[in-house]
Amino acid sequence: MTVTSQLNRRGLLTGTAAVIGAAALPAAARATAPLSGTQAPGFYRIKLGAYEVTILNDGARTFPLPDTFVSNASKDQALRAAADAFMPDGKITVPFNPTLINTGSKLVLIDTGNGPSPDGAVGRLFANLAAAGVKPEQIDLVVISHMHPDHINGLRTAAGKIAFPHAQIIAPEPEWAFWMNDENMAKASDTMTRNYFANTRKILTGLEDRIVRYAWGKEVAPGITAIATPGHTPGHTSFTVVSGNSQMMVQSDVTNIPELFLRNPDWHVAYDHDPALAQQTRHEFYDMASVEKMLIAGYHFPFPSAGYVEKTATGYRLVPVQWSAVL
Amino acid sequence: MTVTSQLNRRGLLTGTAAVIGAAALPAAARATAPLSGTQAPGFYRIKLGAYEVTILNDGARTFPLPDTFVSNASKDQALRAAADAFMPDGKITVPFNPTLINTGSKLVLIDTGNGPSPDGAVGRLFANLAAAGVKPEQIDLVVISHMHPDHINGLRTAAGKIAFPHAQIIAPEPEWAFWMNDENMAKASDTMTRNYFANTRKILTGLEDRIVRYAWGKEVAPGITAIATPGHTPGHTSFTVVSGNSQMMVQSDVTNIPELFLRNPDWHVAYDHDPALAQQTRHEFYDMASVEKMLIAGYHFPFPSAGYVEKTATGYRLVPVQWSAVL
Repeated sequence: MTVTSQLNRRGLLTGTAAVIGAAALPAAARATAPLSGTQAPGFYRIKLGAYEVTILNDGARTFPLPDTFVSNASKDQALRAAADAFMPDGKITVPFNPTLINTGSKLVLIDTGNGPSPDGAVGRLFANLAAAGVKPEQIDLVVISHMHPDHINGLRTAAGKIAFPHAQIIAPEPEWAFWMNDENMAKASDTMTRNYFANTRKILTGLEDRIVRYAWGKEVAPGITAIATPGHTPGHTSFTVVSGNSQMMVQSDVTNIPELFLRNPDWHVAYDHDPALAQQTRHEFYDMASVEKMLIAGYHFPFPSAGYVEKTATGYRLVPVQWSAVL
Repeated sequence: MTVTSQLNRRGLLTGTAAVIGAAALPAAARATAPLSGTQAPGFYRIKLGAYEVTILNDGARTFPLPDTFVSNASKDQALRAAADAFMPDGKITVPFNPTLINTGSKLVLIDTGNGPSPDGAVGRLFANLAAAGVKPEQIDLVVISHMHPDHINGLRTAAGKIAFPHAQIIAPEPEWAFWMNDENMAKASDTMTRNYFANTRKILTGLEDRIVRYAWGKEVAPGITAIATPGHTPGHTSFTVVSGNSQMMVQSDVTNIPELFLRNPDWHVAYDHDPALAQQTRHEFYDMASVEKMLIAGYHFPFPSAGYVEKTATGYRLVPVQWSAVL
C-alpha cells in the first residue's frame, strides 16, 4: 500500500480527516499542559574567532504582494517566485534581522529594526535582546547601515527617547549627506521617498550632534569595517567582521528577500534608490561572496538570517547555516 | 571601487586583515557584556489548527564522512553533496529533532532523541523541553517511530530510569516484532545491526509490559495517525497530524539528511535496513508531499526541521519554513 493510498484511505488528502481528530477529542478535554501561544526567542549565536555574533529577529511582515514590488518584472513572475518559496498565497513575507557583535570589549549593534509597533509583528528586537541576556543600556555602539525606517526606527522608544542610552550612534557619511539635505527632500518626487525623508527627520532630529558620521573603508569598531555597497540607498553600507582567522559579512540590504532578489539578482525591488547601481553592487557582492564562500548575515534573510551564497545558472542561491546547538 | 577591491585593499580576502581587529583591541579590554558562550534554546513552535506542534532539537553530530555512508554512491560524490551544503570540509552534520504535539488534551512526544550524552553534542531534548516550558512528567504519550538508538535512547535517564514517568509509551507493532525477536538478532550479520539489536535490549528490557504496540493506519492519539513507511527499518513509521483544516506530516527517517538523500533520493544511507524498499518509500512519500504541498517535520532536517518539498529534475529540494516570530 503506497503512502498516498494510506492517506486517501484515511481521508487525509481530501480534508475529511479533520473530523477524526475533532471527534476523538472529549468535549471537556483538559490540557495536561496549556498551549503556549508564543514562539521561541528569536536570537541565534555564531562564534566568530574571539567574537560572538548574535542575530536578533525584529519580526517579519507578511502582506499582499504590491503590483510594483518588483519594478522590472511582472507581478505574475514575482508571485511565482513567492509561491516557489511556499509563501502564503498572493503574499510575501519580509523578515528583519539586526546583528549584535560582542568583540569582547564592545557590544556593537548593527541596525535597530522597525522600532515600537502596536501589532507585535515587528519591533521584537528588544524582547529578543532581553532573551539573549543583553540590556539596551549595555550597547556601546549602534552602527546604522542606511537610513530606511526598518533600520533606524528602533533608535527611539515609543516615548521618543533614545533606546540605547549609553551607545555612541554612527551613520554612513554619504547616507547622512543625502537624507538630511533639505534640497534633496524638496526634490523627492514620489510618496515613498517623501515618506523616507519625513521619517529621517522624525527619528534623527535632535541627534545631529550625537550621531557621528563614518566613512566607507574605515573600521567602525575593532575588526568591523564599513564597505561601500551603494544603490539601495546612496550611502548604503555593508560590513566585514574579522576576528582571528574567521570572517563574515553583514550585508544589510544588498538584496531584499533572497527568495525573489537573490535568485533573480537583476530584479529591482521597489525600495531601491538607484536600481541599476544596486543591481551592479549585488552582482559584485555575491560574485565575491560565492567565490570566497563567505558567511553572510542578511537583514532580510529568513531567521537565523545567515548563510552562504552559491552561484547558479540564472542567479544565486542562499544556503542557510545549519543551526548549531553549541558555539 | 568594487566590493572585492575594497576587501582586497583592506587585506580582508588575504587573511592579513585579522591583524587589524586584533591590533585595535586593547590588551586589557574589559567586556561590557560577557561573551555568552551558549546558543539560543532549540525549540520552534508551529500552530496547526487547534494544536501546537513544537520541534525540539536534540543536538547534532558532525563527523568525518564514513567511506560507506552512502552505500551506492562514491565517497567523492557524497563529499561533493556535503560541500554543496557548506558542511565542514570532509565532514557531515546530522541533526536530531523530536516533535512534541499539544492537542489541547494530550502532550504527545514523537521520538526521544539520543538520550544522555557526556559530550553535550546530543541529548539536548530535555534542556530544550525545559526551555519550551514542558516538564518530562507532563508528557502523556511517547510515540516511537522506529527503534534506532537516536530515536529510543532518550526513553531512559542517565540513571536508567524512565525519562517520562507518567507517559504511556507506544511503538510500531512490526518494529517491535523485528527487533525484539532473538532469532532475528542471532541472524544479524554486521556490527551495526548487532549493535542496534543490543541497544534495543539495553533500552527496552523491562518495558515489555509497559510499551503498547500500535498498528499502521490507526490513530495513536486524536488526529495523529501512524503511516507505514518501511524500508529504513522493517517497522519504520511516519505520522499525519490533523487539526481542523490544517495538516502536516512527521516523517521520521524517510530520508536521512536532506542535503544528501533528498537531493539524491536513490542514494542509500548506511543505516537503511532494506535500502531498495526505503528508496521506494522515499519516492512515494515525496511525490505525494510535493504534489500536496504538505508541511513536513523531518527528524534529520536542519533545525527548525520543518519545510516543504519540491520535486526537481534529479530529486527533491527542501524549502525550510520561514521562521515565524508569532503563532
